[in-house]
Amino acid sequence: MKITKPTLILDKEVCIRNIRKMAEKASRNNVEFRPHFKTHQSHEVGRWFREFGIDKITVSSVSMAKYFVQDGWSDITIAIPVNILELDEINTMASRIKINVLVDSIDVVELMDDKLKNAIGIFIKIDTGYHRTGVDATDVKAIEELVKKIDRSNKMEFKGFLTHSGNTYTTESRDEILNIYNDAISKLKILKVHFINEYPDLMISFGDTPSLSILDEFSEIDEIRPGNFVYYDLMQYELGACDLDDIALKIVCPVISKSIERNEVVVYGGGVHLSKDRIQLGGKSVFGKVDMINNIAVADEIYLKSVSQEHGIINVPEEYIKKIKHGDLISIIPVHSCLTLNLHKYVYLRDFSVLSNIHSIS
Amino acid sequence: MKITKPTLILDKEVCIRNIRKMAEKASRNNVEFRPHFKTHQSHEVGRWFREFGIDKITVSSVSMAKYFVQDGWSDITIAIPVNILELDEINTMASRIKINVLVDSIDVVELMDDKLKNAIGIFIKIDTGYHRTGVDATDVKAIEELVKKIDRSNKMEFKGFLTHSGNTYTTESRDEILNIYNDAISKLKILKVHFINEYPDLMISFGDTPSLSILDEFSEIDEIRPGNFVYYDLMQYELGACDLDDIALKIVCPVISKSIERNEVVVYGGGVHLSKDRIQLGGKSVFGKVDMINNIAVADEIYLKSVSQEHGIINVPEEYIKKIKHGDLISIIPVHSCLTLNLHKYVYLRDFSVLSNIHSIS
Repeated sequence: MKITKPTLILDKEVCIRNIRKMAEKASRNNVEFRPHFKTHQSHEVGRWFREFGIDKITVSSVSMAKYFVQDGWSDITIAIPVNILELDEINTMASRIKINVLVDSIDVVELMDDKLKNAIGIFIKIDTGYHRTGVDATDVKAIEELVKKIDRSNKMEFKGFLTHSGNTYTTESRDEILNIYNDAISKLKILKVHFINEYPDLMISFGDTPSLSILDEFSEIDEIRPGNFVYYDLMQYELGACDLDDIALKIVCPVISKSIERNEVVVYGGGVHLSKDRIQLGGKSVFGKVDMINNIAVADEIYLKSVSQEHGIINVPEEYIKKIKHGDLISIIPVHSCLTLNLHKYVYLRDFSVLSNIHSIS
Repeated sequence: MKITKPTLILDKEVCIRNIRKMAEKASRNNVEFRPHFKTHQSHEVGRWFREFGIDKITVSSVSMAKYFVQDGWSDITIAIPVNILELDEINTMASRIKINVLVDSIDVVELMDDKLKNAIGIFIKIDTGYHRTGVDATDVKAIEELVKKIDRSNKMEFKGFLTHSGNTYTTESRDEILNIYNDAISKLKILKVHFINEYPDLMISFGDTPSLSILDEFSEIDEIRPGNFVYYDLMQYELGACDLDDIALKIVCPVISKSIERNEVVVYGGGVHLSKDRIQLGGKSVFGKVDMINNIAVADEIYLKSVSQEHGIINVPEEYIKKIKHGDLISIIPVHSCLTLNLHKYVYLRDFSVLSNIHSIS
């Protein structure tokens, strides 16, 4: 295959290594590994996990759960507060497979008690500091009320407490990530101690790739749900969660314009190929990092400084501008592999075979 | 149809009104109207333009050109500097229909002279101040060199000068937009005067929705290529390019969580549904604006303060937080309709019929 337009390339070897590393770490720590599949959204990549004994997964929507049920997954946590408008679909799925959902509201639990037709597992979403969703970890009274309500229902099985420390994504050092992790765990342990006698099987389920990549030891947790680690990306690298050579997904884009005056190269590759997710580096927004030009590794720090719908502008050091030609292929590390992947119908392995079943969820 | 998840709703009446307004304005000014189709990417919406006599269009990629050729469009400008890796596809298309491409490099023109098999129209991309692509408008020597080279080729027909004042998108007032427009036009007029004797048919082709929405009179231009005006969005509204009731595309999202302490509501609807495009309002990033809750118009200024992959967080005034319930449907005006549209397989009209042929270009 000849690359002629923005094309996602996945390094299977790197991806498998990332999966193996996390699977082994989970096993060493004696925790359940329930990987989040929202990063790859692919039946085929899902099957690579099966080779490591994975049989439980996490997804971020009912649609994504249905997609993975089609490939035989039968134990799925839908890690977003339950959307009561989709209870019919959840009911249908729960008649065939094991489903866990998240709740953070007594109103929703009451409604589910009324509407559920089949047994499902319930995690209480706990807010340990990210402040997106969840019951505040210190609000034991509200949590107790939820647990009791769930316990009284004959359709809901209380599974435990689940958190996602998404606030690790805005940190600037490994120490900050570790502090967030430790703080979250100490809050969750208090809850566990409080409820464990009555619910000896309750689990502490923990998310987020940055913490789980940096930590070697996390035996206080019962279950981990990292997702992004399967591909990693520039954001994870800048957070210190991975090395550059752990990043499995790149996007290759052709050069279509250049400006010698501004030391800029423009590629065909923009917001509809990369997403508009950005990170701040040295006070500037960055939309991606160049890692290869025509398959030759680039050692310098070269970044996408902006993207519009189809264009990406790359600031290059002066010595590059005369060497780079129209039609050259620039390989770019995306800022956020989950969002970049979501924009593409096809992902190619390095031998240019196409991954089957890549699924656009929208 | 019952809405249960993030769903794009298009108001056809508003959309048709936007098309009519721009078509009439073009006609009053006696300029060619070659609308950009990258905003809607839909055969069906394209057909609505045909009813206003439109038979020439603009697209932003070869893939998008091919998509619209399938629905019978036969005069297409691909408004991105030509990607030489796609010359084979351009050759094939040019054997069947009229194609115009953009160039801003002598190297590319030389290569095209060598590789083209069928006649195509060439616009020289002029940089009038946006500094993304194009030859600097004041570099008459370089432009002359390009024009001559194009003229000597028997495959390339010199069509004129094309610019896109994308810098209007970062302005803060109508006056600033008008200044950018006037500056661009004065530069392009100098070029026109310089070349018109030798090339009496040369055209000045001008883009960007903000300028063309604000201006009533633009008879100096020969052709306009606005795109976003078909749907408009929050960005255009904040620029003063449209009223709120000119915005034809909204996304409806269910409430899945709320926090009384933080006065926040969380919807199922995130970066994979809205895109991560943002605007700055009052020093804060904003990812969308609430316009209706359960079909009732909201007069207050309520914004999405952040989005992650599937979640959107909305700051609401205190009096709203107790009224909003789980499962309520929040209609949101997207920041950038082009990027939001691009994320969806389906767009629904208000009567819930699905627009056919919505095309994801990636």
